[in-house]
Amino acid sequence: MPVFAGVFPYLVSPIGPDGAVLEQPLRDLVEHLIGAGVHGLTPLGSTGEFAYLNNAQRREIVRIVVEQARGRVPVVAGVAATTTADAVAQAKDYAGLGADGILAVMEAYFPVPEAGVVAYFTAIADATDRPVVLYTNPNFQRSDLSLPAIDALSRHPRIVAIKDASTNTGRLLSILNRVEGRMDVFSASAHIPAAVMLIGGVGWMAGPACVIPRESVRLYELCRAGNWAEALPLQRQLWRFNELFAQYALAACIKGALQIQGFAVGDPLPPQSPLSEAGRADVARALAGLG
Amino acid sequence: MPVFAGVFPYLVSPIGPDGAVLEQPLRDLVEHLIGAGVHGLTPLGSTGEFAYLNNAQRREIVRIVVEQARGRVPVVAGVAATTTADAVAQAKDYAGLGADGILAVMEAYFPVPEAGVVAYFTAIADATDRPVVLYTNPNFQRSDLSLPAIDALSRHPRIVAIKDASTNTGRLLSILNRVEGRMDVFSASAHIPAAVMLIGGVGWMAGPACVIPRESVRLYELCRAGNWAEALPLQRQLWRFNELFAQYALAACIKGALQIQGFAVGDPLPPQSPLSEAGRADVARALAGLG
Amino acid sequence: MPVFAGVFPYLVSPIGPDGAVLEQPLRDLVEHLIGAGVHGLTPLGSTGEFAYLNNAQRREIVRIVVEQARGRVPVVAGVAATTTADAVAQAKDYAGLGADGILAVMEAYFPVPEAGVVAYFTAIADATDRPVVLYTNPNFQRSDLSLPAIDALSRHPRIVAIKDASTNTGRLLSILNRVEGRMDVFSASAHIPAAVMLIGGVGWMAGPACVIPRESVRLYELCRAGNWAEALPLQRQLWRFNELFAQYALAACIKGALQIQGFAVGDPLPPQSPLSEAGRADVARALAGLG
Amino acid sequence: MPVFAGVFPYLVSPIGPDGAVLEQPLRDLVEHLIGAGVHGLTPLGSTGEFAYLNNAQRREIVRIVVEQARGRVPVVAGVAATTTADAVAQAKDYAGLGADGILAVMEAYFPVPEAGVVAYFTAIADATDRPVVLYTNPNFQRSDLSLPAIDALSRHPRIVAIKDASTNTGRLLSILNRVEGRMDVFSASAHIPAAVMLIGGVGWMAGPACVIPRESVRLYELCRAGNWAEALPLQRQLWRFNELFAQYALAACIKGALQIQGFAVGDPLPPQSPLSEAGRADVARALAGLG
Repeated sequence: MPVFAGVFPYLVSPIGPDGAVLEQPLRDLVEHLIGAGVHGLTPLGSTGEFAYLNNAQRREIVRIVVEQARGRVPVVAGVAATTTADAVAQAKDYAGLGADGILAVMEAYFPVPEAGVVAYFTAIADATDRPVVLYTNPNFQRSDLSLPAIDALSRHPRIVAIKDASTNTGRLLSILNRVEGRMDVFSASAHIPAAVMLIGGVGWMAGPACVIPRESVRLYELCRAGNWAEALPLQRQLWRFNELFAQYALAACIKGALQIQGFAVGDPLPPQSPLSEAGRADVARALAGLG
Repeated sequence: MPVFAGVFPYLVSPIGPDGAVLEQPLRDLVEHLIGAGVHGLTPLGSTGEFAYLNNAQRREIVRIVVEQARGRVPVVAGVAATTTADAVAQAKDYAGLGADGILAVMEAYFPVPEAGVVAYFTAIADATDRPVVLYTNPNFQRSDLSLPAIDALSRHPRIVAIKDASTNTGRLLSILNRVEGRMDVFSASAHIPAAVMLIGGVGWMAGPACVIPRESVRLYELCRAGNWAEALPLQRQLWRFNELFAQYALAACIKGALQIQGFAVGDPLPPQSPLSEAGRADVARALAGLG
Repeated sequence: MPVFAGVFPYLVSPIGPDGAVLEQPLRDLVEHLIGAGVHGLTPLGSTGEFAYLNNAQRREIVRIVVEQARGRVPVVAGVAATTTADAVAQAKDYAGLGADGILAVMEAYFPVPEAGVVAYFTAIADATDRPVVLYTNPNFQRSDLSLPAIDALSRHPRIVAIKDASTNTGRLLSILNRVEGRMDVFSASAHIPAAVMLIGGVGWMAGPACVIPRESVRLYELCRAGNWAEALPLQRQLWRFNELFAQYALAACIKGALQIQGFAVGDPLPPQSPLSEAGRADVARALAGLG
Repeated sequence: MPVFAGVFPYLVSPIGPDGAVLEQPLRDLVEHLIGAGVHGLTPLGSTGEFAYLNNAQRREIVRIVVEQARGRVPVVAGVAATTTADAVAQAKDYAGLGADGILAVMEAYFPVPEAGVVAYFTAIADATDRPVVLYTNPNFQRSDLSLPAIDALSRHPRIVAIKDASTNTGRLLSILNRVEGRMDVFSASAHIPAAVMLIGGVGWMAGPACVIPRESVRLYELCRAGNWAEALPLQRQLWRFNELFAQYALAACIKGALQIQGFAVGDPLPPQSPLSEAGRADVARALAGLG
């Protein structure tokens, strides 16, 4: 049985113009998502603008999310750094705050040889007793993990899953074939969740689920039940959100969509731009279309 | 009902060291594939090394395939050119030879604005009375068709399908949502065929089916029947061939695999290299694994 | 002393709507360029749309240029193919027509290992007794030659020069350091000719020289004389043409510029577009600015 | 007269295994470089591993360098951030520490529209009274500044220069033509410094000058004097260091080279690797070759 499975929304990071975390909107969002039936929460993913927050802001967000979740669903907190030392410190800190798992991201400026990447992820997994989900994203990172490296990492007792944010769904099947059950696979927003479920995925970690949690959970349940005949029409409808989040900047789009839904989560941190008027109209139309 | 559907192997182009088409191996291959139950034949795709053949060699290959197929399955012949004039001439020529459909590829050296790409494909579709399948490949071409351009092309009465050879399966769902039934979608070897069938695809046009036609047809039938529980284990096994064809050069890999199976299809045209010893061993192992 | 040196304009390929070579404009252009003092002529480069012409059109262009040049300046004819056999046939054909040298281009659809690339260029150099200039372009080709491969090719007695069409001028210095005089280096339009002359280049092969031949020759002479104080202001002024040819599609831009100058060279072959109105205005302005 | 001109080595950031700045080696390096005649010092460039340091480490490095330089040469300190707020805070901090100028870098995770990039750099220039040098690097950043954006920024009274770390030297000439003297241009290690001086550059900001400061200054003086005949042989010899720094990871290479020269600057921060044995041998050979 997977350690983590189901719909894990990537939470946005609500930050005010002065840099302070907007605590109440974040608590409201957590409450809303748990109420909608999501299976876990993932603060500090890409959608959570981890690359734009300092360590104090990141810590505060994990603290609030863990506290508000109150153990009802697992909280898998994002750890992202360019240095191993920083990543290990973050992981220990978040485990100390009560995070149930670590989503491990490697940032890079210079290319790092694969042995260095494996060492980086291993150090995070060694740092705490929490299960670790690898997050790989060839679009935003400079290194992509090879199948042999993923295979090696899958043998670590605490590396339990991977979320590969490429658009290449075939790569997920190659990973699944390669790791032979030692590691679970989550879909990202660039994949079709139902297709990833079909080939053996255990769920999805993605920003859109922040905005359409109830529908996402419904889709997950249909896939889990093997009810593809009902899953597909729903998937085709929900795909519009993945398209919008690819078309507009990810954080801007989700923060804009949450504002439309009444969550005062603020704007992306400058020099990122808020969602444009055209983007807000497109998102509003897609939300209305859900009926 | 789709005009074309099912498993359409991309045929290799057997060429001898003197540049002559190796007629008998090509006839044998056609016979073998039809005997294995494939639903159509596609000479002169990427796998067919269209970029390495002159127009006389291309013509000869279409002639032989059409003649050998004898109408038992449709032959969709590849048309590929940098100029509209050359493409139109090829299309008319292949239609005159009896090809049942045209697979339209656009080659480019300089970038071409999208209006030019749409005009190119439209000219091919206007040139004959045969149905046209668009072939887009962002890896090998300089231009990728936008969704609005695909939408526009889908309104041409003879443009009936698209084969998108990116690895981005989500893009196929976006196309399906956009064209609202005016155009069918085929999987390429870079996609998981079962996943494409799940989201509404009508089959696949791909090189690996040349080597594992019987298993491909079996997979197609399971998908068509919605028998995903049996389809998936087979898909996971067959995926190895897609991996091999991505790992080694496509034409070299398939020609090598066919040689192992007893088809004297020759080597890729120089300066391309034949399949390496390591590659032959990997392919032989995968074939043996099929039982 | 270099085999070839100086300003070698890449000639456009004037083709009518029916596909016939426009002989008189081509002869006029050759006459005009020789009159302006260029040191050689290069038909069938990128600017010459080699990728859009069939072998008959290519042959006709070489025939006319060689005939019209009448030995006054060397003609280095472009050979471009995906297969070694086609390239060798072209080289022999052009040598038979009287071309003084071969500009060797490798086209590729699938990636070719470097040994294959070296074999391709070596086969061209072995095919005739004419000196060969290598043409490498990482933007338009799939393979870039490594320094060791260039070193190996520089030891062929008939491979005399290289034109590297990357924008990376440092790479040219690395080549010059590596080949130790066994091979000359020409600038492409993506480099600053004066900077390439400074580091040891022997001239340039580029499209803009078709349009500004007299000024190009003047710049070359200043560089040759080491008169950098006068060369640089001229170079800064002429650079505008390199910018325009990068901004607009290369062939379209040069054909448009030649039309403005009174040469009826026709438009690029469809689906390429003719130079836009904005482009014509920009080019006209730059020409007027030459005073 | 340029605000900054000449050879500005990018300093490495010596950090111990515990994360502490290695103060004495940094002071020794500053002393050594000033003694060798460099015209300025640039802590916290790419070579300075800015992407791997936290703000406390960055601050400490600027503090030490400014203090040790004692006003003998200007210190242009690197500011790099994903958010405008962080960048402005860094700039104010370094100005308060006595930095003579700011080298402004924009990091990005999500793409930022150009207006955002311009706003980011403008905010840095508005934050203090120090002159600002823009640092653009299309290889390591997600956004490249367009010429119109550079033009707009050149009109800010405190934005005095740009260092463009692409390999595209022609782009530097386009910038020079565009800004009409409102902004100076520095060469990066990916350009040939002598070529950039020829076209109007004012010097170079680059890691190799850390390792070969005396030779770099000699080259600069020859270029300044227009003595190209002597400059070029020296440039061709020194180019080997630029090649090595491109071949091996930048920070690893320069730290390794400084260790060979007796500076105990430590290794790059993990998971980056120290310079390999092969790299050390190559660098040692190049150093020995300087005679």
